[in-house]
Amino acid sequence: MCRWIAYRGEPVPLEAYVTKPVHSLVSQSVHALESTAAFNGDGFGLGWYGDQPEPGLYKELRPAWSDENLQHLCRHLRSHMFFAHVRAATGTSVSRPNCHPFACGKWMFMHNGLLANWEVLRREVEAMIPDDLYHWRGGTTDSEALFLALMGQGLTGAERLDPMRATAKMVEAVTRLADGKGAGAAFRFTAALADGRDLYAFRYSANDSSNSLYYRALGNAVVVASEPLDQDRGSWIGVPENSALVARWGEPLEILPFPETYSPKIEAIPAAR
Amino acid sequence: MCRWIAYRGEPVPLEAYVTKPVHSLVSQSVHALESTAAFNGDGFGLGWYGDQPEPGLYKELRPAWSDENLQHLCRHLRSHMFFAHVRAATGTSVSRPNCHPFACGKWMFMHNGLLANWEVLRREVEAMIPDDLYHWRGGTTDSEALFLALMGQGLTGAERLDPMRATAKMVEAVTRLADGKGAGAAFRFTAALADGRDLYAFRYSANDSSNSLYYRALGNAVVVASEPLDQDRGSWIGVPENSALVARWGEPLEILPFPETYSPKIEAIPAAR
Amino acid sequence: MCRWIAYRGEPVPLEAYVTKPVHSLVSQSVHALESTAAFNGDGFGLGWYGDQPEPGLYKELRPAWSDENLQHLCRHLRSHMFFAHVRAATGTSVSRPNCHPFACGKWMFMHNGLLANWEVLRREVEAMIPDDLYHWRGGTTDSEALFLALMGQGLTGAERLDPMRATAKMVEAVTRLADGKGAGAAFRFTAALADGRDLYAFRYSANDSSNSLYYRALGNAVVVASEPLDQDRGSWIGVPENSALVARWGEPLEILPFPETYSPKIEAIPAAR
Amino acid sequence: MCRWIAYRGEPVPLEAYVTKPVHSLVSQSVHALESTAAFNGDGFGLGWYGDQPEPGLYKELRPAWSDENLQHLCRHLRSHMFFAHVRAATGTSVSRPNCHPFACGKWMFMHNGLLANWEVLRREVEAMIPDDLYHWRGGTTDSEALFLALMGQGLTGAERLDPMRATAKMVEAVTRLADGKGAGAAFRFTAALADGRDLYAFRYSANDSSNSLYYRALGNAVVVASEPLDQDRGSWIGVPENSALVARWGEPLEILPFPETYSPKIEAIPAAR
Repeated sequence: MCRWIAYRGEPVPLEAYVTKPVHSLVSQSVHALESTAAFNGDGFGLGWYGDQPEPGLYKELRPAWSDENLQHLCRHLRSHMFFAHVRAATGTSVSRPNCHPFACGKWMFMHNGLLANWEVLRREVEAMIPDDLYHWRGGTTDSEALFLALMGQGLTGAERLDPMRATAKMVEAVTRLADGKGAGAAFRFTAALADGRDLYAFRYSANDSSNSLYYRALGNAVVVASEPLDQDRGSWIGVPENSALVARWGEPLEILPFPETYSPKIEAIPAAR
Repeated sequence: MCRWIAYRGEPVPLEAYVTKPVHSLVSQSVHALESTAAFNGDGFGLGWYGDQPEPGLYKELRPAWSDENLQHLCRHLRSHMFFAHVRAATGTSVSRPNCHPFACGKWMFMHNGLLANWEVLRREVEAMIPDDLYHWRGGTTDSEALFLALMGQGLTGAERLDPMRATAKMVEAVTRLADGKGAGAAFRFTAALADGRDLYAFRYSANDSSNSLYYRALGNAVVVASEPLDQDRGSWIGVPENSALVARWGEPLEILPFPETYSPKIEAIPAAR
Repeated sequence: MCRWIAYRGEPVPLEAYVTKPVHSLVSQSVHALESTAAFNGDGFGLGWYGDQPEPGLYKELRPAWSDENLQHLCRHLRSHMFFAHVRAATGTSVSRPNCHPFACGKWMFMHNGLLANWEVLRREVEAMIPDDLYHWRGGTTDSEALFLALMGQGLTGAERLDPMRATAKMVEAVTRLADGKGAGAAFRFTAALADGRDLYAFRYSANDSSNSLYYRALGNAVVVASEPLDQDRGSWIGVPENSALVARWGEPLEILPFPETYSPKIEAIPAAR
Repeated sequence: MCRWIAYRGEPVPLEAYVTKPVHSLVSQSVHALESTAAFNGDGFGLGWYGDQPEPGLYKELRPAWSDENLQHLCRHLRSHMFFAHVRAATGTSVSRPNCHPFACGKWMFMHNGLLANWEVLRREVEAMIPDDLYHWRGGTTDSEALFLALMGQGLTGAERLDPMRATAKMVEAVTRLADGKGAGAAFRFTAALADGRDLYAFRYSANDSSNSLYYRALGNAVVVASEPLDQDRGSWIGVPENSALVARWGEPLEILPFPETYSPKIEAIPAAR
């Protein structure tokens, strides 16, 4: 089980959340409190938006806690929107292509969770990736495949779907797989998605309970994290199960039910009236 | 374009071929003579058979020339059958899972060549991998996919096919793909396959000319290599295009046409009677 | 604080102690029981003796628990004498040259402990390394410097000293440094030393208490380890503080006081007559 | 022999010089024109100044040409002053601590060249590093030791020396060592030094000829490089042997004789009058 944080707000140095706080992401890599994995030493990654439409990425298969490059980058990079992730592998190899976050064009994604029975379901999920995106498949994780399947639900190409709706469609399709060929496989999906302007975070599970997710809002800024980053736990609010946090640029933060509100089923109801 | 060597014979220290000769594999990593890639610095790998049925593997994404571990292992490991490979990547990432040799059960494989138009053909070749072997797919190279497709041609499972025939079937199926969906894509396949007893090496191409391949026999021992390992070039014999070298345990070395002799077409002739 | 094991006996596959037991060294890298460091993820190393006078080494800065190469090597290497070490760094960088074991000619060494106030004492300990050995200094750890200082106490060169006496001389000189310029710096020295025939292990400290050390003897074989490797704790015997375990080839195991018996002070007595 | 570039001017993305030009530093890592090393695959590093007084650093032991992180950082980092370096090792190990550039407080340094007979001279050069800087010594290269010796010539601490004079003093002291204990050892010093405001580049040698060095000025901006970065070689000006390029912030570029003008000897003459 991994740990991650996502930030959206005024540009700040990444160190403000990744390396400096008492219970920063890097200190969570050494000792996570709300996780079944005591530590997260199977690689890590940073992704940040700056002047370019697509995010910058830094991934490394070493543990975060001993990487001098990470200290330097977090001190010297500033961004209005960034992701950071420390990995505890659940069966796939420790390699850079298996580290989060993943990017595809302007989109960036990271995940804490799993799709159980992955050996059986891998081909099915990979089959959800459109041909023209398949060359982005660089590793073997469930997380990367889920992301590219999500991209294939209308986030790239001519017709664009709302990201919430696209994610709901992907999550529901994968839940059907988990229930069917996966024979009731647990599917835990605590994930973040961004495009440089808008940030979405999801806490969902099927056949299991969801991994933890918290946020803290400070004016325009919002920090979303697997665990509170400091001991002022009162300032951190838990995201309920089966919910999404939506932080669109210049708009107030929303917590919405997920995936129900956006699901094709729900939509189909008014259409049927 | 990569460089490789394969050895079968009395147990020798790996250094005898990998690190010590004037034009050893490691010196080829720095300066190859018969290659379009001036050097091969995109990772490397060793595979060797010892007491266990399956081979041992050592892979590393650093260049071979600066890896102290490689020097130690080549000096201290002895084997009657081993592979060594230095990689020059042709588009896929530099990571351990993309390094050769690849293993699956008792089988070991390495490759110098390519399947052009890989972005278009990748899914088709991956579809040739049987479900029960798909979890061995750890990287993104054409080489690993070709190997697992070959395994799926009857080298594992209850019914076993002759390795030459299995390789011929795979190569012909991939050639059809290259000719069809690949729109005449070049397919170069200079590869080695072994199971701890028998060694096979192939030099084949479609829509292109084959990568170089040489061998030297010394009594019971045979060394097969992309390029001669020393300046006594007279003692090295070129393997002709569209041929296979077969060095079965305790049997004399053979050079045979490939894939014709073993092709389903040829077999189909008796079936046609 | 690191964890290590050393083996001397009939040749066995390294996996018998490094990767397979319930509480193998690799599982100690994930969860050590008798250590202040909850895990040991700052690199690791193997060293083994085979056909050559000097040991083979495999070092890697990744954690031991996720390294496929380590699994392969431990399964395929057999040795009558080997060391394995997982590192928890105490201030110096995570790099291969800082991983244990260290070798110098036929000698091999590894260490669990520290010399506190290292920034002040480093130059003094480095000054104890003879000129002709100084090119072996590849990293920045106290451990490697202690080893090369020990080599300089008569383990190389024309006049050879008994290894116990040489170690005692080094340890006493470093203790004087710790007491003097180090202003009472803690010095913990739980270490192993071997030459391919004889194995020595030391548990010593000054200004502090010693790190744990255990052994188990099985016929001619002896395993020495930071912690018992299995749950049959009754079969593991603790090495007392300020003691050395001596397992010379073909001789019975001895536990001796250290460094007193071998100290220059003791030797000085006959010289005083 | 390594390759490097240094930039000072309006903030630009690092890719403008490191990864994009026809003969960018990364393409020089694959094929250098004016170097005895055909390629530079023994690690690399970036250093850049931004909002902080000290530079950010990114170092990696993999070759520059296959590192995706480097592509991302060069595209997303902008700086008014940065260094980039690709390494061809001359005997010391390939590790991050041996990669350039090196930093110490606000200062940053990189080097192309060597001090021959390093095994004999290493201790002497290390002895030139002041005690309070010795903990910065993280690797084993001549380059890092030369830098810390230079820092010790008055670039840190209460009394500050002019950087040109400090470098001249260090270079002359090392030349005396090379001539004396080094028995006429070649000393090639083509190096860059910066503090976030001012940039200095040196081309010097003793007992040998100097490594190449070029620059191009474009308004306020200056690029200094081992080799021209594009085919418009006419716009690149060679720095003469035994010269320094001085690009102080807001001042015109100067090419000055080095080390003569600034040497203690020269200075001593007027003082003696």
